[in-house]
Amino acid sequence: MVSTEAAVVIESSVPSPVAASVAAAAVAVAVEVEAIKTTESMLTNLDLETVSVLDFDKGDPTMYEAYWKSIGEDFEITISASQALSYFANPKSFCWFMLPKLEQKIRNLHNLVGNAVVEGRHIVVGNGSSQLIQAALYALAEPLDPPSPISVVSATPFYSCYPQIADYVRSGLFKWAGDAHAYVKDAPYIEMVTSPNNPDGELRGPVVNKANGMLVHDLAYYWPQYTAITEPVDHDIMLFTVSKCTGHAGSRIGWAIVKDPDVAKRMVKFMEISTIGVSKEAQLRAISILEMISTNSCPSNFLGFGQSVMAERWKKLREALKGTDVLQVPDFPPQHCNFKRDYNECHPAYAWMKAQEGLNLEEVMKEESIRVRGGGTFGCPSNYARLSMLGRDKDVDLLLKRLPSILKRLAH
Amino acid sequence: MVSTEAAVVIESSVPSPVAASVAAAAVAVAVEVEAIKTTESMLTNLDLETVSVLDFDKGDPTMYEAYWKSIGEDFEITISASQALSYFANPKSFCWFMLPKLEQKIRNLHNLVGNAVVEGRHIVVGNGSSQLIQAALYALAEPLDPPSPISVVSATPFYSCYPQIADYVRSGLFKWAGDAHAYVKDAPYIEMVTSPNNPDGELRGPVVNKANGMLVHDLAYYWPQYTAITEPVDHDIMLFTVSKCTGHAGSRIGWAIVKDPDVAKRMVKFMEISTIGVSKEAQLRAISILEMISTNSCPSNFLGFGQSVMAERWKKLREALKGTDVLQVPDFPPQHCNFKRDYNECHPAYAWMKAQEGLNLEEVMKEESIRVRGGGTFGCPSNYARLSMLGRDKDVDLLLKRLPSILKRLAH
Repeated sequence: MVSTEAAVVIESSVPSPVAASVAAAAVAVAVEVEAIKTTESMLTNLDLETVSVLDFDKGDPTMYEAYWKSIGEDFEITISASQALSYFANPKSFCWFMLPKLEQKIRNLHNLVGNAVVEGRHIVVGNGSSQLIQAALYALAEPLDPPSPISVVSATPFYSCYPQIADYVRSGLFKWAGDAHAYVKDAPYIEMVTSPNNPDGELRGPVVNKANGMLVHDLAYYWPQYTAITEPVDHDIMLFTVSKCTGHAGSRIGWAIVKDPDVAKRMVKFMEISTIGVSKEAQLRAISILEMISTNSCPSNFLGFGQSVMAERWKKLREALKGTDVLQVPDFPPQHCNFKRDYNECHPAYAWMKAQEGLNLEEVMKEESIRVRGGGTFGCPSNYARLSMLGRDKDVDLLLKRLPSILKRLAH
Repeated sequence: MVSTEAAVVIESSVPSPVAASVAAAAVAVAVEVEAIKTTESMLTNLDLETVSVLDFDKGDPTMYEAYWKSIGEDFEITISASQALSYFANPKSFCWFMLPKLEQKIRNLHNLVGNAVVEGRHIVVGNGSSQLIQAALYALAEPLDPPSPISVVSATPFYSCYPQIADYVRSGLFKWAGDAHAYVKDAPYIEMVTSPNNPDGELRGPVVNKANGMLVHDLAYYWPQYTAITEPVDHDIMLFTVSKCTGHAGSRIGWAIVKDPDVAKRMVKFMEISTIGVSKEAQLRAISILEMISTNSCPSNFLGFGQSVMAERWKKLREALKGTDVLQVPDFPPQHCNFKRDYNECHPAYAWMKAQEGLNLEEVMKEESIRVRGGGTFGCPSNYARLSMLGRDKDVDLLLKRLPSILKRLAH
């Protein structure tokens, strides 16, 4: 309720094109919040089979609950009332609010998975990667003392929350400027490079490639559950989050791996002013969880669990869509995964669906009581929509049951 | 190191008066970070008596550690690996990321202490009150769609972090405009009312009192440890934090009590975009801690402990300053405290010290290896400085030992 209304306020009061993107994105979040409310409140009252609305809009990683429940009490943490009262976790470090063990576990995990270079790099912890995106924009734009806000771009289809993250407080330092493919100015700019991309799962590089460019690599999904780990990437600013790595979205823990120490320090300064750091309790749990997934003991290891659930879901989805072209999802050629030491199919966190041109796919799905996120919020036409693959098994099963009816509707 | 350098970057690159305030405030934070680093790294190497720098600059509430250690394991919490994975804590509520029990404990505590009206009011949880200040500024300014940023003012001496909180991302919605006493425009404005005030401990009301005014009451210190609870206050937006109430600054948990549901919803929207809510682990501990302090079992109750420590410290400080006028601290007439059901002396979280005009008190104290926060960051002359009363006993004892030497230096 709140978000829908807030989105409407933005939409009606700010008539610029940027404001329109913000409003669209705000509506997306609003719909997300509304959807989960509707779904969950109905779940409490009704039998599952009679639930009218299923939410595949949000990226809430509840598929991982099954795994963590199977672990039982082995990785529960205990926090005493006298622990971690101070603002400070490591006064000797530039990132003074980060527990030293968390930094160590983050480095260990990347070394194990082989998805990012951490040697000689600076780690900054944040309240999820949303806050780190803002910290990165601040850290890059602030020293330029820009006379007008620096353009923030990302190639379509771009992550639907970038516009509002860049614009909600109308910063004089940075401003959402839309599709990176359309960026032609010679002024400094910041390009968000999302790889694998949200919503379409593609491994991506920058597209503007001009001299004044600054890059932020959003690598939330660069884990073996979702894609082949082709190399340890080594970019200027790389963002990760436990939400999509381990499923602990409720913890609000993300981290940045940063090359330039001055950029890292300015990101820490942003976290200081924004929230005076990051909850120590959340860091303590992240330490325990990252430690656990780094002890890669087969066959019931965590990353293996994630891989098999995603593979199974994609297999079922592709089977359900076989022999029709009214609803298409991308194909990914198998790539060699250095972590798996084998060729790996990609199983992105989202299915980026395409229907016939002119159709509003989000609306069609809604008529079948399936909520997805429409193409418009990703800078794309409305015959595209994003379907989350991260929810609970029971919802995925219900979706698959309803798909034939959706396909029928799309064929007419 | 990080913050000092980051502050210098701002100072050298942004030549406006606002930038100067931001830079000054940033330097204050920088000094704070630097001070704790210096102090703690020295503490690990040296005997306490030979420590050269003592930090009384920051408001880190470590005085409460002694109490929570005495509680032992009674209020430790256990969090399993499968708990609270979702972004959502209470999908039915407008504040969908707040655990329902936390809201209940917050309401119970205010009802017990009698410091704020909560009946019929909306609670919004945040990552500490710093983030809630920003959420409040956003929630008040955004619907006005202001052609130029709305002025944010606060009466001197004002909390030293307000300028940078208002200005760091150069928002087009709001902008720091300095001392509320000097505000003469007829345009809409937001006044931060800090009560008891940081740094001087005064119970305060708004000072501008114009028709276009919007108020944010920062009540972080309106607890019986620091002041008499004279009435349950009932303002439009009231901010509190566990940092100063229970000492758990590392948790980053604050809350707002809000009258207007639309303002509350916009604050939630700010939290959504800024950090997608608040760590569930931190909320779980706050539930346990707030529950504990609400069971007010004498004689060793928590609020009683806080009151007695603060009273003892102020008594010793006043004794040490007796008979001299080279260093003055405010006097507070006893007031009736509804919580204590007795007349209560005020024992603010900070001593707002005044030396002879023309002196730089921060510098004089620094020469005696005592770090305090200079008057300039609070919008005041440099013969004022803030001394934190929230640190550990051993540091307070060392300060008291050094005071005679400081007084001697001030007398010359």
